[in-house]
Amino acid sequence: MDRVVIVGTGLIGSSVGLALRAVEFPGTITGIDSNPEERKTALKMEAVDTIVDDAASGMLALEAADVILLAVPVLAILDWMKRLGPILKPHQLLTDVGSTKAAIADLAATLYNAPGQATFLPGHPMAGKESGGAALAEARLLESAMWLFTPLGEETPATREWRSWINKIGCRSMDMDPIRHDKICAWVSHMPQFVATAMAALFEDEFGDTREISAIGGRALREMTRLGASPYSMWRDVAMTNTDNVAATLYALEQRLAHLRENLRTPELRDEFSRANAFRTRR
Amino acid sequence: MDRVVIVGTGLIGSSVGLALRAVEFPGTITGIDSNPEERKTALKMEAVDTIVDDAASGMLALEAADVILLAVPVLAILDWMKRLGPILKPHQLLTDVGSTKAAIADLAATLYNAPGQATFLPGHPMAGKESGGAALAEARLLESAMWLFTPLGEETPATREWRSWINKIGCRSMDMDPIRHDKICAWVSHMPQFVATAMAALFEDEFGDTREISAIGGRALREMTRLGASPYSMWRDVAMTNTDNVAATLYALEQRLAHLRENLRTPELRDEFSRANAFRTRR
Repeated sequence: MDRVVIVGTGLIGSSVGLALRAVEFPGTITGIDSNPEERKTALKMEAVDTIVDDAASGMLALEAADVILLAVPVLAILDWMKRLGPILKPHQLLTDVGSTKAAIADLAATLYNAPGQATFLPGHPMAGKESGGAALAEARLLESAMWLFTPLGEETPATREWRSWINKIGCRSMDMDPIRHDKICAWVSHMPQFVATAMAALFEDEFGDTREISAIGGRALREMTRLGASPYSMWRDVAMTNTDNVAATLYALEQRLAHLRENLRTPELRDEFSRANAFRTRR
Repeated sequence: MDRVVIVGTGLIGSSVGLALRAVEFPGTITGIDSNPEERKTALKMEAVDTIVDDAASGMLALEAADVILLAVPVLAILDWMKRLGPILKPHQLLTDVGSTKAAIADLAATLYNAPGQATFLPGHPMAGKESGGAALAEARLLESAMWLFTPLGEETPATREWRSWINKIGCRSMDMDPIRHDKICAWVSHMPQFVATAMAALFEDEFGDTREISAIGGRALREMTRLGASPYSMWRDVAMTNTDNVAATLYALEQRLAHLRENLRTPELRDEFSRANAFRTRR
């Protein structure tokens, strides 16, 4: 595995580049990004060795790659998968960091992993920040993060080597079915995000730039709305490709909030606190 | 202000004791607590100089106090206010750290601040942790926290001196109307708490001790459910004494979540992210 190409040198793509360098990955790392600013930043931070500045040299780099990491939002990953399917050779490995996996696995089944086709290994590191961009990338962002895989076919030497690098950079990893992945990620990742967005948007409408809120609000408000800073560009694709699961978790929380609201003065409130306490005690 | 009595030597009461000591408060600090374990811990941590072990010596300490800080849940504060009203002398200052202020201000108006009565200055430090108890107390818990006051009458030498100690221990402070206090705290403090409780309780019912959740969940899940560990004993009193305001904020969030859920695939999602981004950018 000599030549890695990272498509999307934003927060996650650049962090992977930095992490590979930090554990002395010996090959070359090439970056591709549609945003000239992100390209410049990724190169300056040494998240990549070289950055591609035009479509033709991008295609050359992709054709020469041993492994290509798609680190763009999910809909863009699907686009890249379609473009690269007919071009890549059987020895090449395509992998990704997309937040949802069912749509990606479905598309991959038609384009990859059959004889004569390149290998596709869907992946998803459970790491991030509320703001994106190469400037915030860091090697340690991925340290002790869980990197989920939803493999579609047999392991190959290339998938084994990629997995070993993921472990070397400090990630834990786990294999899951893509349907299960999207359901469980709707709970542990997507629902917290959309709740924080809804809360922050509600505060914006209620209070705008009222200074009182900043002066009085403490850690609780800060924490519960931190993810309100997250970019629409990434989360739109999660909402688009995991709609039913996300809607189900949000609906469940709406019901739960209504139940709690109706029981603010009854002993049922104590039971809700007991359940919540039990959940936290295990973590 | 030589003799301070702290009623309730839990997290906040003991943290105030430690903070006063840290800035070299020269007087004596006496603790009163109904829980023998909390008493022992507060004394061992030197959050108080002496701790009272029976009702009779408690009464003597209260009669001799220059300032009494009620650091118990709101309903217990109301009880103490009723018990102390007929006993305290005009030169004595009673103050508190209760999370809601309207019920306390209403009761205080009938028992304090008139000629011949002791002074009552309602207060509320915006600080805390998800778990209570003296063992978690620390002087710096209150550092740069906002200590809200909802004064009922004229300032006196005692209220001025107490306010100056609150500033010396590193708190910012602000005066508010108690009705406004309860409304705004429902938004910035109580709603985040009850949302975290509802989320953690929902996760408990959905997943119980499923190991997957701990293995996969990252910072988003941890943060959004951290307050699920908070004790019912304290929050029951908030729910009891600020029911309508809390219910209104929860209902508003339910509506907002439903709106977001119905727009997971429409451009309105972008607008919600814009509003949320705007709120966070100001903080």
